[in-house]
Amino acid sequence: MSFSIHNIPFGIFSIKKQKKRLATIINNQVVDLYAVAELGYFDDLKIKKSVFRQDFLNDFIALGKEKTNAVRKRLQEILSDTQNFSPLMPLTPSRSGVTVFYDAKAVDLHLPIKIGDYTDFYSSEQHATNVGMMFRDPANALLSNWKHIPVGYHGRASSIFVSGQNFHRPKGQINASDSTLPIFSATKRLDIELEMATIIGKNNAIGHAIDVNEAEDSVFGFTLFNDWSARDIQRWEYVPLGPFLAKNFFSSMSPWVVTIEALEPFRVPAEVQNPEVLPYLKEKNRQNFDITLEVFLKPEHTEGVKICHSNFKNMYWTVAQQIAHHTVNGCNLNIGDVMASGTISGKEHDSFGSLLELTWGGKKPISLPDGSTRTFLEDGDTITIKGFAEKNGICIDFGEVQTTVLPAH
Amino acid sequence: MSFSIHNIPFGIFSIKKQKKRLATIINNQVVDLYAVAELGYFDDLKIKKSVFRQDFLNDFIALGKEKTNAVRKRLQEILSDTQNFSPLMPLTPSRSGVTVFYDAKAVDLHLPIKIGDYTDFYSSEQHATNVGMMFRDPANALLSNWKHIPVGYHGRASSIFVSGQNFHRPKGQINASDSTLPIFSATKRLDIELEMATIIGKNNAIGHAIDVNEAEDSVFGFTLFNDWSARDIQRWEYVPLGPFLAKNFFSSMSPWVVTIEALEPFRVPAEVQNPEVLPYLKEKNRQNFDITLEVFLKPEHTEGVKICHSNFKNMYWTVAQQIAHHTVNGCNLNIGDVMASGTISGKEHDSFGSLLELTWGGKKPISLPDGSTRTFLEDGDTITIKGFAEKNGICIDFGEVQTTVLPAH
Repeated sequence: MSFSIHNIPFGIFSIKKQKKRLATIINNQVVDLYAVAELGYFDDLKIKKSVFRQDFLNDFIALGKEKTNAVRKRLQEILSDTQNFSPLMPLTPSRSGVTVFYDAKAVDLHLPIKIGDYTDFYSSEQHATNVGMMFRDPANALLSNWKHIPVGYHGRASSIFVSGQNFHRPKGQINASDSTLPIFSATKRLDIELEMATIIGKNNAIGHAIDVNEAEDSVFGFTLFNDWSARDIQRWEYVPLGPFLAKNFFSSMSPWVVTIEALEPFRVPAEVQNPEVLPYLKEKNRQNFDITLEVFLKPEHTEGVKICHSNFKNMYWTVAQQIAHHTVNGCNLNIGDVMASGTISGKEHDSFGSLLELTWGGKKPISLPDGSTRTFLEDGDTITIKGFAEKNGICIDFGEVQTTVLPAH
Repeated sequence: MSFSIHNIPFGIFSIKKQKKRLATIINNQVVDLYAVAELGYFDDLKIKKSVFRQDFLNDFIALGKEKTNAVRKRLQEILSDTQNFSPLMPLTPSRSGVTVFYDAKAVDLHLPIKIGDYTDFYSSEQHATNVGMMFRDPANALLSNWKHIPVGYHGRASSIFVSGQNFHRPKGQINASDSTLPIFSATKRLDIELEMATIIGKNNAIGHAIDVNEAEDSVFGFTLFNDWSARDIQRWEYVPLGPFLAKNFFSSMSPWVVTIEALEPFRVPAEVQNPEVLPYLKEKNRQNFDITLEVFLKPEHTEGVKICHSNFKNMYWTVAQQIAHHTVNGCNLNIGDVMASGTISGKEHDSFGSLLELTWGGKKPISLPDGSTRTFLEDGDTITIKGFAEKNGICIDFGEVQTTVLPAH
């Protein structure tokens, strides 16, 4: 896998603590978009150069799809023209003393988005079913609202960090039963959730719902997302108002935002919904995206292993339905808002997107290459989520989001 | 009631669509703090004048308490010195052609804070008990975690607006029973929640918990807050992940942030907690603030009526405990974050802070002066929340947050 000419995702990079800039990536070369702008390649697009020297993508996204797609197309043109604009000579100043290419290993990648609000959905049927079977009634695993509502809740925006930033195991209240007293402890059931994050690309005014059939116009692109979860804290705190400290200690996002336009070849029909949904959720053309998702667990001193192989197409509720639902009451979305998918679990056991499901509540440990086992995560464990789409020789790589669990403070 | 010299709250104003500026208010005179800075009154405090010409208070708050308290004290000095700096000659340029005072009715007041994350707590025992009695078990109204955890959840920051901004009745999925099919409708159970909002005044780094006995250092001040709620949407959507569209269509905040320092004379002991809380929530000196809170309901074409008389001291969990709990897992708070109290209900029936409680789920309608009644709100109804503290001749007014319900789109 690598970042092909078909992809051209957007991100934020810096070198040696200099001011952050916008970038794309091709193969393993980070392309400085401010440098490209300085060289005049965007001049006819009438975009202020300063838009490419920002801490976040938000101002760029705010230019609108016509301009951002024109930038992406222009980059595809010039990066294909290896005679005049060569990514094969990356580390030397290309012309006018402007350096355009950097080895990906030599730069710092940052959180690409200044996140306003963060919403987490719960849109994979298998995940909701698995959780319902474990914690509620195996015979009636799905709650009665699940097939009518793309269930979601608000999460914490401030604690979303980029791949490579690590966190200390969180502490909190834990109580295994309602008849005992809670204790204060570092979480013993630290888990991941394999998710994708939708980056909102357009504002809607308060009071104005977004039509489900126009909802994809509000999507700038997607990243990989790990919704870290402390299951024991969650169990005790979540009634009646939902997860809070079990989630808001840390979330992880991949650095490259893949545009929805890059994913056109990977559209697949989404499952027919039964029962029928209310009219505001009915789509003329229900589509998901066929994106392979993988999760790797690597203990500190030994080899890692792939623990999950899932796919973004395992969504009962599409991104368009999530947006239509989120705004049907008039709620205003803003550029840079993040809407995560919820854990993406497929039907096969090895496609479950959390350790909770993979180990069935800790009852079926996962075997590691060194003979040890895992139910939930231990200190020093590194989790890497990777994602890519591939078809007819076209590959769209999402890169990865990698995070290591540090010991509790 | 009015804004006394003891108060000196902070807000954001503009006149005639000019650039927004910071302000305070004394009596009914809005004081342009950029003008005060231009006149040199803050020169020795070494604060960049541009801090007073911003769209939000955040940069001012970021100066830290030493500076913001010095500004407040300076304003108290000069506004008391009526010989040299007279609020009695308000609408004429005071000196050097700089206008300092504006009639409060002549200016636009704006949302005072650029809100990062918004959290809503659930910290009044009477409110949690009332809700539990109505929706769960009257004999065991409080859930088993309630007296151990200051229960809270994340809300939507983007849809918080200032007093005077109105909203259209939200639409959504409603289902009165789990065995029927949901319908799509404008909410028929539109409600208020009487709350106070804490404005966070200090950042804590990710991973670093705030000690409960130092937590008030993270508080810049407070506003009045109306957490608008659609009870029928809430009922159907809220399991298992909490309220979402029932809340995120609109929330309302008063324009003046009253500093925690202004509230010093109004500290009162908070209730002894039983059972004992975990050590991270144990306070050396448990205190609430004695602030009278009132809610008025005014139908479109007739006289209004006071429907609730409560007090901010009706909090089982203090603001310090909320902050300590919110960060105990390492969650990072930022300047400008909002933490709302949850509905503040007292023990008396007329101190319940929502229509849900005041009308006991719609069963006991409220009588209005014109002979009509209300269970939940009708189009054209205006809700005004007022708040003030008064003791030994000192009055700290919070002003009001007023919002009118417009018909559904």
